[in-house]
Amino acid sequence: MTTKVLPLLEPEAAAPCCPPLSERPLTAEEAERTAVMFKALGDPVRLRLFSLVASHAGGEACVCDISDVGVSQPTVSHHLKKLREAGLLSSERRGTWVYYRVEPSVLAAMGRLLTRAAGA
Amino acid sequence: MTTKVLPLLEPEAAAPCCPPLSERPLTAEEAERTAVMFKALGDPVRLRLFSLVASHAGGEACVCDISDVGVSQPTVSHHLKKLREAGLLSSERRGTWVYYRVEPSVLAAMGRLLTRAAGA
Repeated sequence: MTTKVLPLLEPEAAAPCCPPLSERPLTAEEAERTAVMFKALGDPVRLRLFSLVASHAGGEACVCDISDVGVSQPTVSHHLKKLREAGLLSSERRGTWVYYRVEPSVLAAMGRLLTRAAGA
Repeated sequence: MTTKVLPLLEPEAAAPCCPPLSERPLTAEEAERTAVMFKALGDPVRLRLFSLVASHAGGEACVCDISDVGVSQPTVSHHLKKLREAGLLSSERRGTWVYYRVEPSVLAAMGRLLTRAAGA
Protein backbone atom coordinates (compact mmCIF):
# COMPACT_ATOMS: atom_id res chain seq x y z
CA MET A 1 0.00 0.00 0.00
CA THR A 2 1.34 3.42 -0.90
CA THR A 3 0.78 6.59 1.04
CA LYS A 4 -0.43 9.45 -1.05
CA VAL A 5 0.35 12.93 0.18
CA LEU A 6 -2.53 15.25 -0.56
CA PRO A 7 -1.58 18.82 -1.34
CA LEU A 8 -2.62 21.49 1.09
CA LEU A 9 -5.05 23.86 -0.53
CA GLU A 10 -4.21 27.29 0.74
CA PRO A 11 -6.47 30.13 -0.28
CA GLU A 12 -4.53 32.62 -2.36
CA ALA A 13 -3.64 35.93 -0.81
CA ALA A 14 -6.56 38.14 -1.78
CA ALA A 15 -7.39 40.91 0.61
CA PRO A 16 -10.65 42.83 0.35
CA CYS A 17 -9.75 46.06 -1.27
CA CYS A 18 -10.42 49.68 -1.70
CA PRO A 19 -12.82 52.46 -0.88
CA PRO A 20 -16.19 52.76 -2.66
CA LEU A 21 -15.70 53.52 -6.33
CA SER A 22 -17.52 56.83 -5.93
CA GLU A 23 -15.08 58.10 -3.32
CA ARG A 24 -11.91 58.34 -5.35
CA PRO A 25 -10.35 56.71 -8.42
CA LEU A 26 -8.63 53.41 -7.78
CA THR A 27 -4.87 53.39 -8.08
CA ALA A 28 -3.35 51.18 -10.77
CA GLU A 29 -2.33 48.69 -8.10
CA GLU A 30 -5.79 48.57 -6.51
CA ALA A 31 -7.41 48.15 -9.91
CA GLU A 32 -5.09 45.26 -10.77
CA ARG A 33 -5.94 43.51 -7.54
CA THR A 34 -9.69 44.05 -7.72
CA ALA A 35 -10.15 43.37 -11.43
CA VAL A 36 -8.99 39.78 -10.84
CA MET A 37 -12.11 39.14 -8.77
CA PHE A 38 -14.52 40.75 -11.20
CA LYS A 39 -12.88 38.86 -14.04
CA ALA A 40 -13.40 35.57 -12.22
CA LEU A 41 -17.15 36.31 -12.09
CA GLY A 42 -17.16 37.54 -15.68
CA ASP A 43 -17.65 34.09 -17.16
CA PRO A 44 -21.24 32.78 -17.24
CA VAL A 45 -20.34 29.23 -16.23
CA ARG A 46 -18.09 30.40 -13.40
CA LEU A 47 -20.70 32.87 -12.18
CA ARG A 48 -23.30 30.12 -12.16
CA LEU A 49 -21.00 27.75 -10.30
CA PHE A 50 -20.24 30.49 -7.83
CA SER A 51 -23.96 30.98 -7.17
CA LEU A 52 -24.33 27.21 -6.77
CA VAL A 53 -21.68 27.16 -4.06
CA ALA A 54 -23.01 30.34 -2.41
CA SER A 55 -26.55 29.02 -2.23
CA HIS A 56 -25.75 25.40 -1.39
CA ALA A 57 -26.94 23.94 1.90
CA GLY A 58 -24.29 24.50 4.57
CA GLY A 59 -22.63 27.20 2.48
CA GLU A 60 -20.25 24.81 0.78
CA ALA A 61 -20.22 22.43 -2.13
CA CYS A 62 -17.93 20.00 -3.88
CA VAL A 63 -17.83 18.93 -7.50
CA CYS A 64 -19.88 15.92 -6.37
CA ASP A 65 -22.76 18.29 -5.53
CA ILE A 66 -22.77 19.98 -8.90
CA SER A 67 -24.53 18.70 -11.96
CA ASP A 68 -26.65 20.07 -14.78
CA VAL A 69 -24.54 23.11 -15.57
CA GLY A 70 -23.83 21.71 -19.02
CA VAL A 71 -20.09 21.24 -18.61
CA SER A 72 -18.01 18.23 -17.63
CA GLN A 73 -16.80 17.55 -14.11
CA PRO A 74 -13.16 18.40 -14.99
CA THR A 75 -14.39 21.73 -16.36
CA VAL A 76 -16.34 22.36 -13.16
CA SER A 77 -13.19 21.61 -11.16
CA HIS A 78 -11.16 23.94 -13.34
CA HIS A 79 -13.60 26.82 -12.83
CA LEU A 80 -13.86 26.27 -9.08
CA LYS A 81 -10.09 26.39 -8.89
CA LYS A 82 -10.09 29.68 -10.80
CA LEU A 83 -12.59 31.13 -8.35
CA ARG A 84 -10.37 30.01 -5.50
CA GLU A 85 -7.30 31.54 -7.10
CA ALA A 86 -9.18 34.83 -7.42
CA GLY A 87 -9.83 34.72 -3.67
CA LEU A 88 -13.60 34.30 -3.99
CA LEU A 89 -13.75 30.75 -2.68
CA SER A 90 -11.77 28.90 -0.08
CA SER A 91 -11.35 25.17 -0.25
CA GLU A 92 -10.74 22.24 2.01
CA ARG A 93 -10.06 18.65 1.06
CA ARG A 94 -12.06 16.10 3.04
CA GLY A 95 -11.55 12.54 1.92
CA THR A 96 -12.03 12.20 -1.81
CA TRP A 97 -13.51 15.61 -2.42
CA VAL A 98 -12.48 19.23 -2.23
CA TYR A 99 -15.18 21.37 -0.63
CA TYR A 100 -15.55 24.98 -1.69
CA ARG A 101 -16.97 27.79 0.38
CA VAL A 102 -17.62 31.45 -0.36
CA GLU A 103 -15.15 33.92 1.15
CA PRO A 104 -17.59 36.30 2.86
CA SER A 105 -15.14 39.12 3.60
CA VAL A 106 -13.97 39.38 0.00
CA LEU A 107 -17.51 39.34 -1.32
CA ALA A 108 -18.67 41.92 1.18
CA ALA A 109 -15.83 44.20 0.13
CA MET A 110 -16.79 43.85 -3.54
CA GLY A 111 -20.42 44.51 -2.68
CA ARG A 112 -19.55 47.67 -0.75
CA LEU A 113 -17.39 48.87 -3.61
CA LEU A 114 -20.42 48.77 -5.90
CA THR A 115 -23.30 49.54 -3.58
CA ARG A 116 -21.82 52.68 -2.12
CA ALA A 117 -20.78 53.86 -5.57
CA ALA A 118 -24.41 53.67 -6.62
CA GLY A 119 -25.34 56.20 -3.98
CA ALA A 120 -23.02 58.80 -5.48
CA MET B 1 -20.75 73.67 -45.16
CA THR B 2 -21.84 70.11 -44.52
CA THR B 3 -24.20 68.93 -41.83
CA LYS B 4 -22.90 66.08 -39.78
CA VAL B 5 -25.44 63.81 -38.18
CA LEU B 6 -24.26 62.68 -34.79
CA PRO B 7 -25.29 59.17 -33.80
CA LEU B 8 -27.66 58.81 -30.89
CA LEU B 9 -26.01 57.01 -28.04
CA GLU B 10 -28.62 54.74 -26.54
CA PRO B 11 -27.69 52.80 -23.46
CA GLU B 12 -27.79 49.11 -24.20
CA ALA B 13 -30.60 47.07 -22.71
CA ALA B 14 -29.15 45.91 -19.42
CA ALA B 15 -31.59 45.34 -16.62
CA PRO B 16 -30.46 44.80 -13.05
CA CYS B 17 -30.71 41.12 -12.49
CA CYS B 18 -31.27 38.34 -10.10
CA PRO B 19 -31.68 37.47 -6.44
CA PRO B 20 -28.69 37.43 -4.07
CA LEU B 21 -26.26 34.69 -5.04
CA SER B 22 -26.80 32.98 -1.71
CA GLU B 23 -30.52 32.57 -2.29
CA ARG B 24 -30.56 30.20 -5.22
CA PRO B 25 -28.30 29.30 -8.16
CA LEU B 26 -28.53 31.60 -11.14
CA THR B 27 -30.14 30.17 -14.26
CA ALA B 28 -27.99 29.93 -17.37
CA GLU B 29 -29.77 32.94 -18.83
CA GLU B 30 -29.32 35.05 -15.69
CA ALA B 31 -25.65 34.09 -15.51
CA GLU B 32 -25.12 35.07 -19.16
CA ARG B 33 -26.68 38.45 -18.56
CA THR B 34 -24.90 39.21 -15.31
CA ALA B 35 -21.46 37.90 -16.29
CA VAL B 36 -21.28 40.60 -18.98
CA MET B 37 -21.20 43.26 -16.28
CA PHE B 38 -18.61 41.53 -14.13
CA LYS B 39 -16.49 40.92 -17.20
CA ALA B 40 -16.59 44.61 -18.07
CA LEU B 41 -15.09 45.38 -14.63
CA GLY B 42 -12.62 42.51 -14.93
CA ASP B 43 -10.02 44.55 -16.77
CA PRO B 44 -7.74 46.73 -14.61
CA VAL B 45 -7.78 49.71 -16.97
CA ARG B 46 -11.56 49.56 -17.38
CA LEU B 47 -12.09 49.22 -13.65
CA ARG B 48 -9.89 52.22 -13.04
CA LEU B 49 -11.69 54.27 -15.67
CA PHE B 50 -14.99 53.22 -14.16
CA SER B 51 -13.86 54.45 -10.74
CA LEU B 52 -12.70 57.71 -12.36
CA VAL B 53 -16.17 58.31 -13.81
CA ALA B 54 -17.92 57.19 -10.61
CA SER B 55 -15.87 59.51 -8.42
CA HIS B 56 -15.70 62.49 -10.79
CA ALA B 57 -17.26 65.81 -9.75
CA GLY B 58 -20.89 65.88 -10.86
CA GLY B 59 -20.96 62.12 -11.30
CA GLU B 60 -19.95 62.24 -14.93
CA ALA B 61 -16.80 62.50 -17.00
CA CYS B 62 -15.71 62.65 -20.60
CA VAL B 63 -12.48 61.51 -22.20
CA CYS B 64 -11.37 65.13 -21.88
CA ASP B 65 -11.43 64.75 -18.08
CA ILE B 66 -9.30 61.64 -18.03
CA SER B 67 -5.55 61.56 -18.13
CA ASP B 68 -2.70 59.71 -16.44
CA VAL B 69 -4.15 56.22 -16.69
CA GLY B 70 -1.26 55.22 -18.92
CA VAL B 71 -3.27 54.52 -22.07
CA SER B 72 -4.04 56.65 -25.12
CA GLN B 73 -7.24 58.65 -25.52
CA PRO B 74 -8.61 56.28 -28.20
CA THR B 75 -8.05 53.40 -25.80
CA VAL B 76 -9.86 55.29 -23.05
CA SER B 77 -12.77 55.88 -25.47
CA HIS B 78 -12.80 52.21 -26.39
CA HIS B 79 -12.99 51.09 -22.77
CA LEU B 80 -15.69 53.61 -21.86
CA LYS B 81 -17.75 52.34 -24.78
CA LYS B 82 -17.33 48.77 -23.52
CA LEU B 83 -18.56 49.82 -20.07
CA ARG B 84 -21.56 51.48 -21.70
CA GLU B 85 -22.30 48.39 -23.78
CA ALA B 86 -22.25 46.32 -20.59
CA GLY B 87 -24.89 48.65 -19.14
CA LEU B 88 -22.64 50.07 -16.43
CA LEU B 89 -22.37 53.58 -17.86
CA SER B 90 -24.82 55.71 -19.75
CA SER B 91 -23.62 58.36 -22.16
CA GLU B 92 -24.72 61.64 -23.63
CA ARG B 93 -23.08 63.65 -26.36
CA ARG B 94 -22.82 67.37 -25.60
CA GLY B 95 -20.97 69.35 -28.24
CA THR B 96 -17.64 67.77 -28.99
CA TRP B 97 -17.58 65.32 -26.13
CA VAL B 98 -19.44 62.27 -24.95
CA TYR B 99 -20.12 62.39 -21.23
CA TYR B 100 -20.32 59.16 -19.26
CA ARG B 101 -22.23 58.60 -16.05
CA VAL B 102 -22.58 55.60 -13.77
CA GLU B 103 -25.86 53.66 -14.03
CA PRO B 104 -26.83 53.57 -10.34
CA SER B 105 -29.58 50.95 -10.61
CA VAL B 106 -27.36 48.42 -12.35
CA LEU B 107 -24.56 48.95 -9.89
CA ALA B 108 -26.85 48.71 -6.91
CA ALA B 109 -28.20 45.42 -8.22
CA MET B 110 -24.67 44.04 -8.62
CA GLY B 111 -23.81 45.23 -5.14
CA ARG B 112 -26.85 43.53 -3.61
CA LEU B 113 -26.03 40.34 -5.48
CA LEU B 114 -22.68 40.22 -3.68
CA THR B 115 -23.36 41.86 -0.35
CA ARG B 116 -26.32 39.71 0.56
CA ALA B 117 -24.49 36.61 -0.59
CA ALA B 118 -21.76 37.43 1.88
CA GLY B 119 -24.22 37.18 4.75
CA ALA B 120 -25.06 33.60 3.85
